[in-house]
Amino acid sequence: MSKIMSHDDDTLATLAEAPTSRRAFLRTASLSAVGGALVACGTSSGQTQNSAAAKTTAAATAAPAPSGQTGGTMGAHDTVKPTAGPLDAADAMDAMHEKGIKAFPAKTAVYGNQPLEPKLVNGVKVFELTATEMQWETAPGQMVKAMAYNGQVPGPQIRVREGDRVRVILKNQLTQSTAIHFHGLELPVEMDGVPFITQPPVKPGESYTYEFTVPNAGSHMYHSHHNAAVQVGLGLLGAFIVEPKNKSQEPKVDHDVVFILNDGAHGYTFNGKSFPATQPIVAKLGQKVRIRYMNEGMMIHPMHLHGMHQTVIAKDGWPLQSPWKCDTLNIAPGERWDVVVNCTNPGTWAFHCHILPHAESDHGMFGMVTALVVEK
Amino acid sequence: MSKIMSHDDDTLATLAEAPTSRRAFLRTASLSAVGGALVACGTSSGQTQNSAAAKTTAAATAAPAPSGQTGGTMGAHDTVKPTAGPLDAADAMDAMHEKGIKAFPAKTAVYGNQPLEPKLVNGVKVFELTATEMQWETAPGQMVKAMAYNGQVPGPQIRVREGDRVRVILKNQLTQSTAIHFHGLELPVEMDGVPFITQPPVKPGESYTYEFTVPNAGSHMYHSHHNAAVQVGLGLLGAFIVEPKNKSQEPKVDHDVVFILNDGAHGYTFNGKSFPATQPIVAKLGQKVRIRYMNEGMMIHPMHLHGMHQTVIAKDGWPLQSPWKCDTLNIAPGERWDVVVNCTNPGTWAFHCHILPHAESDHGMFGMVTALVVEK
Amino acid sequence: MSKIMSHDDDTLATLAEAPTSRRAFLRTASLSAVGGALVACGTSSGQTQNSAAAKTTAAATAAPAPSGQTGGTMGAHDTVKPTAGPLDAADAMDAMHEKGIKAFPAKTAVYGNQPLEPKLVNGVKVFELTATEMQWETAPGQMVKAMAYNGQVPGPQIRVREGDRVRVILKNQLTQSTAIHFHGLELPVEMDGVPFITQPPVKPGESYTYEFTVPNAGSHMYHSHHNAAVQVGLGLLGAFIVEPKNKSQEPKVDHDVVFILNDGAHGYTFNGKSFPATQPIVAKLGQKVRIRYMNEGMMIHPMHLHGMHQTVIAKDGWPLQSPWKCDTLNIAPGERWDVVVNCTNPGTWAFHCHILPHAESDHGMFGMVTALVVEK
Repeated sequence: MSKIMSHDDDTLATLAEAPTSRRAFLRTASLSAVGGALVACGTSSGQTQNSAAAKTTAAATAAPAPSGQTGGTMGAHDTVKPTAGPLDAADAMDAMHEKGIKAFPAKTAVYGNQPLEPKLVNGVKVFELTATEMQWETAPGQMVKAMAYNGQVPGPQIRVREGDRVRVILKNQLTQSTAIHFHGLELPVEMDGVPFITQPPVKPGESYTYEFTVPNAGSHMYHSHHNAAVQVGLGLLGAFIVEPKNKSQEPKVDHDVVFILNDGAHGYTFNGKSFPATQPIVAKLGQKVRIRYMNEGMMIHPMHLHGMHQTVIAKDGWPLQSPWKCDTLNIAPGERWDVVVNCTNPGTWAFHCHILPHAESDHGMFGMVTALVVEK
Repeated sequence: MSKIMSHDDDTLATLAEAPTSRRAFLRTASLSAVGGALVACGTSSGQTQNSAAAKTTAAATAAPAPSGQTGGTMGAHDTVKPTAGPLDAADAMDAMHEKGIKAFPAKTAVYGNQPLEPKLVNGVKVFELTATEMQWETAPGQMVKAMAYNGQVPGPQIRVREGDRVRVILKNQLTQSTAIHFHGLELPVEMDGVPFITQPPVKPGESYTYEFTVPNAGSHMYHSHHNAAVQVGLGLLGAFIVEPKNKSQEPKVDHDVVFILNDGAHGYTFNGKSFPATQPIVAKLGQKVRIRYMNEGMMIHPMHLHGMHQTVIAKDGWPLQSPWKCDTLNIAPGERWDVVVNCTNPGTWAFHCHILPHAESDHGMFGMVTALVVEK
Repeated sequence: MSKIMSHDDDTLATLAEAPTSRRAFLRTASLSAVGGALVACGTSSGQTQNSAAAKTTAAATAAPAPSGQTGGTMGAHDTVKPTAGPLDAADAMDAMHEKGIKAFPAKTAVYGNQPLEPKLVNGVKVFELTATEMQWETAPGQMVKAMAYNGQVPGPQIRVREGDRVRVILKNQLTQSTAIHFHGLELPVEMDGVPFITQPPVKPGESYTYEFTVPNAGSHMYHSHHNAAVQVGLGLLGAFIVEPKNKSQEPKVDHDVVFILNDGAHGYTFNGKSFPATQPIVAKLGQKVRIRYMNEGMMIHPMHLHGMHQTVIAKDGWPLQSPWKCDTLNIAPGERWDVVVNCTNPGTWAFHCHILPHAESDHGMFGMVTALVVEK
């Protein structure tokens, strides 16, 4: 259901070679590539822009003294343009920021969270998850040590229906033991995946089979529950979505997006990628997007969407009787929050963790930044 | 009201000497000792288990290539069992993990949060709290420097009724001044316990008497408000529960459990203890458990319960008009949250902070881990 | 609307020269100066206080042994008063604490968050914001490097009405580029303030004009969105309050207070000031205070009010359909929460972040501490 940009779409870097008027562009283009929705509004040559509503002008005349100013310490810059020194430094910083934005969405070879089709065996939906150690690319050229299910970080997305009979076969090809906990599912205790409490650890080279009837709907997760601070940090995690039998409480949406946050050994990531390799969400004007936030990290991440609000409809898979609105949703480790965004505002909207050091440095944006693109 | 396992119950270490079939055990045993609900499912001899639903097998045959695999980096482990090297390392790690689980619930000499019976003096409920410096045992043999009320960390549990007349006599036997703030109670300002704002500091060797009519119901706390970052971190804290006059809004529960989180100089603790010395909650199938979370630490702790959801019914002692459900509840410093768990799912359920480094390392579980045991 | 103490009011340091009976004082005084509501309850000369309800006495007689005591480790202090050594140390610590409290509210030369009156130009409300680099005084003598709008940290408070036409002229007198994002406002994308996505960066020496019709009511913010982890941390932030056209859902309050939290390079601050230079909120008994919390920092801050609860009425500017009560409200970066406090309890109430190391050290209170003063 989810419309996430495909990996073959153009990036801004390509588009920038054929520059376009930014405002005309944003207002009229119906883009299939999100890269096209981002434009190099400023360039290192320092060109300015002319528009009725938004304009940049050199402050050649004296600026009014700021009210409440203590005086002295800031006087030099009031009326005098900075000398070449700081301007050069500013240009150099801007160039780094621009380079990052232009690279977005940067391509990487493999993406996680890909839908995993089950094999149907006597009415049972069978999923195989093979855990291996590998290298993972969080952004172009940025390789990190990983543990992954089926070579993906996050692991493949499992999507079933309340009441389904499900079998998950875990194959451990790691150099350490592991196990899978189905976080949020109210399973029989033998299926809970906690070594030495509900099952033996699954040793390297062994397989282990979980089987159960899916008990409760909602946005859940699966992840390692053995040496988990390490194994989940390295990537042994994925989404386990359960669609309800009774859909009367479900919101009608055009896109259904899983959005997994992590902050361990791989840096600050959305679905296993760091900006500029994060994937934007692309929707048409008037469409509704359901976002299923899942925090698999060690820190909170208050997710801020620009331009439109988020209506919070479920917590940990349980519908809220009294939904509420926000633009910044604080998501703690282990939590899942479902929100709906009504895409009423066209444009390319920054969408990021509002703990700013998770999203930007003086070298530009990185880590937990992506965009929601609302196309006209 | 609360059923917390007694300190004389068997631990897993004892039970493991007479091994039992895990599944039969979990399904049929009606245990009075929680230790019995935990079984050594795997052993260092690597024995496997045979069951229709959950089985471990050596993956002697080739595993299918994971979808989306980048190739190369993980190939070696697909079809070849790891050599003895990693297996030995895995076994060594598992042995450490198993040892921790088997030790749970580990006995320590003294427990905090013990109910404190008031003396009744002319209709006034009189509680005495003596603050001392001492050593505290967070887990067997793990001694930490502490400040404690009545020799307990957390301090003794005070439980009164809305409208009660209460006197709290603080005796300061510390080497520094102190004072008690009744966190959440809407007291006359003279009783608020903030040195130099509402009272003088209580010097070493002095006593100080607080007296008030209990104004508002709910899950509250008492703790030092002098040099508090240090004194509360070292243990000068406790639960102050106020039962409402009007019980019509109160949930009917079988167990009423105070659950105090801390993360200061004593490490990551639940009610003053670190895993494996944390105390499990034990309930019978069908019973309801009310948990009163209180965060006396410096960090958030998203508390994740396996197997069953938590219905959130009150914040800081105030009933929610619109309760909501979750499995992971984020609790910030100073907050109290009341939840009810309907014990519908039998078994031993992991119950831990989902900031994983607060709960597990490669040496096994530690810190903020306990269990909810639902007995058939 | 907001009643924040003026800078010319007396501080406790002055008042302390004419000591008064604390209890009589608190109960009868109707103070215009909040300093007067704080009294030096204890002094370094160790004078005690006599009252029916609250008394300090030297524990000359043996204290009863604490229940549950492990014995040995704490025995020495049960009956014997500490020797002069620790008492001297305790007095020295108390003196530091007292000094901090007596200094509150400490005066600084310039305050941020001052209402900014717009110029009305053809029906457009025009606000000018000039960004400069300067020194900022977070507490008397504590100067920090800052970036500020109009010489204020936080920047001037902008307050408009839903549907207003607004123009904001940004003048960049920094040595680096910048831009303004109107956090929470659902503006046309060209006005969103994200360099290289929605506009070019505003270079040093340049100006940039934002103009829009105010789309949605509530407690919002404006801040830099360029090199923002640095620029917002240094002070480029302010409140952007939008009053709704339809006021039927608005609470009727006597005071409307903006309360901006920050924790970057300036330390732990409320509205740009650290205790003892934070400004108390002053209200009369029976009045209602609306507090608009805004977190511009990198950490959560659970705000704890003593003595009265807070009713939470809005999140990020959106009214809650089901308001809830608390005494400790967790506020994450980028979030805004509106609460109403019904001032039913007279006195001077501590009001602070409950992450205690943000508020107190063994040298006394600092950082995120202020007071709500309810005058009879």
